[in-house]
Amino acid sequence: MEKINIAEKFGLFSDHWKPHVAAEANGQHVRFAKLKGEFVWHSHADEDELFIVVKGRLTVRFRDRDIELSEGEMMVIPRGVEHMPVAEEEVHLINITRAETTMTGNVESDRAIPVSQLDRV
Amino acid sequence: MEKINIAEKFGLFSDHWKPHVAAEANGQHVRFAKLKGEFVWHSHADEDELFIVVKGRLTVRFRDRDIELSEGEMMVIPRGVEHMPVAEEEVHLINITRAETTMTGNVESDRAIPVSQLDRV
Repeated sequence: MEKINIAEKFGLFSDHWKPHVAAEANGQHVRFAKLKGEFVWHSHADEDELFIVVKGRLTVRFRDRDIELSEGEMMVIPRGVEHMPVAEEEVHLINITRAETTMTGNVESDRAIPVSQLDRV
Repeated sequence: MEKINIAEKFGLFSDHWKPHVAAEANGQHVRFAKLKGEFVWHSHADEDELFIVVKGRLTVRFRDRDIELSEGEMMVIPRGVEHMPVAEEEVHLINITRAETTMTGNVESDRAIPVSQLDRV
């Protein structure tokens, strides 16, 4: 049981699109990730995702619109909703979701790191 | 489905020890609360709590030690662990926990607002 300094943890890794598990609570992972560039269109059948932007500006593309999240903004991506995160410049993101949630949900992709292989931070 | 500006939401209420539900994901509440002063010793039998401090400095007292959380720091209070939050100056806290979680867990207290009566923000 110890505290987590968010900025300090983000200083410990540099790879993009590689979530690091910082904590777990009630079967949810708290994942820290650095994003840059485009991800892939996908949805999660049974899992909502909470995105909290701690640095940078994230565009979350949906099929009918885009939502821009800046530092200090958050949103829930509801289960079943197709989305694609895009970061023109590097974004630091906290992603809270079920511990079983895979990165690309319904889509098979080499961008998805298996949950069992996610690093801790 | 819309984004949440954290600082903006905290500007919408001023009462202390009154969590406001800002979002829900995977059966978890994202609760925004302003804290000032001492709360009560309590634990939650079946629920972990994720605390994220977005403003101020929170002391989380445990029976064997204190942990100080500043802005940009977070921690998980595991289920079953007795704790008491103390805020000498006002703290803005994001508390993510199961939607059923009551404020004072195992302790009956008039400080606990029933979950069904929590405001949204």
